[in-house]
Amino acid sequence: MDSAEHDTPLYLQLAQRLWAGIEQAAMAAGTRLPSVRTLAAQHGVSMSTALQALRWLETRGHIEARPRSGYFVAPRARRSKRASGVGEAKAGSAGRWSKPVPEIDAQARDHLAIAGAPTAVRLDLASAETSLYPVERFSVLLRRLAYQHRDLVGSHVRGTGYPALRAQIARQAMRYACELDPEELVVTNGCVEALNLALRAVARPGDVVAVESPTYFALLQMLRALEMRAYPIPCKPRTGIDVDALRQALDDGVPIKAVVTVANGNNPLGSVPSDAAKRSLVELLREHDVPLIEDDIFGDLCFGETRPRPVRAFDDAHGNVLLCGGFSKSLCPGLRLGWIAGGRFTERVKALKYTTSMATAELQQAAVAELLATGGYALHLRRLKAALKSQQHALREAVLRYFPEGTEVTDPLGGLVLWAKLPEIDGRMPSTRVLFEQARAEGISFTPGHLFGENGAFDDCLRLNAGNRWTSELEAAVRRLGELAGRTVVPI
Amino acid sequence: MDSAEHDTPLYLQLAQRLWAGIEQAAMAAGTRLPSVRTLAAQHGVSMSTALQALRWLETRGHIEARPRSGYFVAPRARRSKRASGVGEAKAGSAGRWSKPVPEIDAQARDHLAIAGAPTAVRLDLASAETSLYPVERFSVLLRRLAYQHRDLVGSHVRGTGYPALRAQIARQAMRYACELDPEELVVTNGCVEALNLALRAVARPGDVVAVESPTYFALLQMLRALEMRAYPIPCKPRTGIDVDALRQALDDGVPIKAVVTVANGNNPLGSVPSDAAKRSLVELLREHDVPLIEDDIFGDLCFGETRPRPVRAFDDAHGNVLLCGGFSKSLCPGLRLGWIAGGRFTERVKALKYTTSMATAELQQAAVAELLATGGYALHLRRLKAALKSQQHALREAVLRYFPEGTEVTDPLGGLVLWAKLPEIDGRMPSTRVLFEQARAEGISFTPGHLFGENGAFDDCLRLNAGNRWTSELEAAVRRLGELAGRTVVPI
Repeated sequence: MDSAEHDTPLYLQLAQRLWAGIEQAAMAAGTRLPSVRTLAAQHGVSMSTALQALRWLETRGHIEARPRSGYFVAPRARRSKRASGVGEAKAGSAGRWSKPVPEIDAQARDHLAIAGAPTAVRLDLASAETSLYPVERFSVLLRRLAYQHRDLVGSHVRGTGYPALRAQIARQAMRYACELDPEELVVTNGCVEALNLALRAVARPGDVVAVESPTYFALLQMLRALEMRAYPIPCKPRTGIDVDALRQALDDGVPIKAVVTVANGNNPLGSVPSDAAKRSLVELLREHDVPLIEDDIFGDLCFGETRPRPVRAFDDAHGNVLLCGGFSKSLCPGLRLGWIAGGRFTERVKALKYTTSMATAELQQAAVAELLATGGYALHLRRLKAALKSQQHALREAVLRYFPEGTEVTDPLGGLVLWAKLPEIDGRMPSTRVLFEQARAEGISFTPGHLFGENGAFDDCLRLNAGNRWTSELEAAVRRLGELAGRTVVPI
Repeated sequence: MDSAEHDTPLYLQLAQRLWAGIEQAAMAAGTRLPSVRTLAAQHGVSMSTALQALRWLETRGHIEARPRSGYFVAPRARRSKRASGVGEAKAGSAGRWSKPVPEIDAQARDHLAIAGAPTAVRLDLASAETSLYPVERFSVLLRRLAYQHRDLVGSHVRGTGYPALRAQIARQAMRYACELDPEELVVTNGCVEALNLALRAVARPGDVVAVESPTYFALLQMLRALEMRAYPIPCKPRTGIDVDALRQALDDGVPIKAVVTVANGNNPLGSVPSDAAKRSLVELLREHDVPLIEDDIFGDLCFGETRPRPVRAFDDAHGNVLLCGGFSKSLCPGLRLGWIAGGRFTERVKALKYTTSMATAELQQAAVAELLATGGYALHLRRLKAALKSQQHALREAVLRYFPEGTEVTDPLGGLVLWAKLPEIDGRMPSTRVLFEQARAEGISFTPGHLFGENGAFDDCLRLNAGNRWTSELEAAVRRLGELAGRTVVPI
């Protein structure tokens, strides 16, 4: 993406400008704001950007939308009170920042449907193809374990994880100087369960949880299901979560109960914050006594020379970071194994694991433990990362070649996916919601951008999986997607 | 247990008598009730029974306990308003029926600790020993599948369950005329996850959920973790949940959002309701439009000639019953496989599964599917049930022989456990909480009764696992437990 992308996003700059104007002019509540079209023209931005700016102000309670009549300045009382207002909000009552409905977004469900029913060309998901994982190795390990350790199959499963696996997870973390206590580790059914337990350990229904914007769509669906409210913090394609914006929100008194970050190899942006940024994030949250939930599942898939350290590694002995990880991306998708290091929330996490799924099956835990113990993981990672890097390069080139001129696409520092932003066409805003349906009809799947945000943000973006080996078939699909994207616009 | 046990429990009879008295005498709020000792003497019951009656009235808001001064009649307003009062209650606010704290009960955690750290003699859990399961068969199946179907290990897991397994689950249910649609089935990480998804699909934080009393302790912990309130409905050792008591509660306007029943081979009582009782339960709940969550995990382990039908089988086409099952008790504990048929809540369940653990690993699903498809399950069940029946008989005889005179113990119609009630000793109430600590110190584990209820109910009861082959070592442990029980009393 161009360098501008590295600074505050355009829509945020505009939102801040608009807000400053409203404050300076001391506009009365109910004052009508200019239309999206007018704003776009006045400030020389796209209508999608103008709309995003308005929606951003709306999500913060500065302005209100009235059906068919536009945006209006919100009552001052509400603006100043907004923080406590949400703090007091009852679980389930419509939140200002996100509707905490225990329903999954309709299109997310369509997306699931696709995930369930394979399409011809899969550019959705964030997973490498089977041939890139040490499946042969696992096949041998599982066969031997199923033969030698019948108890792994036939015994009641107790405790919080297979001891040998917990020991290996702690040992692996030492590679990048992250100290984990095997006793604080709970093995989970994939990293998704780890995140779910982490959220429930530190926040309650109605609570506000700060998330990166854009962020992993399943996290937003999870927050809805838990009746928690997502508070978006801008995230940048190279440097990740905007710590200053988070500090601002905390200083503004936004009642943030927890922060979730996918720091290393961010999903969907592929960012990796500097160690300095990680340290300042830890210090900021410790200052405000707000726990951090870190999803490090892409940490082993970052392309740099040295494996980036999790934010947790900078937390010293405070236990304020709940570190979640897993093996579904880096080692073996089919085993559905994840883990969480609960820090000072470990007892809560263990209790919640017990009442959520009791315990995790041990056969596959033993297999992973043995693979990690007997070596070969480092070599596998080098190969996998090399493949992902070249596949991302090929995919990125194809997007730049076949997608409409002006399409921006990330150049990730890690992970499995690319994030692309479509340009306006004839001053009209593209919609990947619409593109999604069209592509789906032609057997091509991807993840539409609006799922990564709320209130319609990122509808002009899409996430593409770079986990597949580059083939002419894949290239043809990207070309076709680019053609469709060129026509996929919606009137405002 | 003696026949009296088959009617309304003594403490409930007393509670109802007391309440009638309070109403008739129109006792003013704040009127002090007689002491536990006096009540026991007046009504010719044990002090533990008198205490249970008072606590039962307290949980319903009829009376209030004041530290060190006894029980007092609650303000009328609160009593009459109690229904709507709870309906309106905010999530997390202290409930009248159960404290919805997201913390696990301290002693439940101790119990977990024991479950985690094996003791010499395990009478806790509800699981048969490994040798009683077809582990050999699974070892072979898993080895073949890991060899032949690498994709089961190396591919991203999609959808709501391995199709072949969902088909087999539906086929199995046909054996006892229970129609399940493979499309409504979601495979889960054990039956505990199924129950968790079911509760979240039909109820929200702050909601009241009716449960059997006594009931599976993990269910009560789960309700706490979900900030839901448990409303106890008496359950009987042979006939199960008291449908009349449930009808009464609904007619009283208790805002019950859902009912959970372990109908077949009830945990801990081993009851199996008649088909007529199941039908009336279904009709009652349909009448009141209250969904039923049925845990049928012990259904295949009932001792009768024919496999009892789940309550769900009597629901016809209404989809008002969410049926949960699993294979951890009947087929293979180590695989941690469960399932849920969501009925009319299927979409909610699928969405919640996605945001709770995304998908369940498929290798073990394929193994179970193949075992069910290739036969041998029926034969295995016959053998397992015969073993359980004889082990229960031996354990029951030993309890009657070695435990204090007057100890009552269930004669289960199915399942893996026995439920025993200790007698008073010298007019003093026994406490299995205390017994638990003493036994633990000697390397003997069991499940203390208070975990199966709330507000101190069932502290004079305990659950014993009959899943172990009967040995002299086991008999010695039961003898020792009986000796300890003879001395385990607490002053009131």
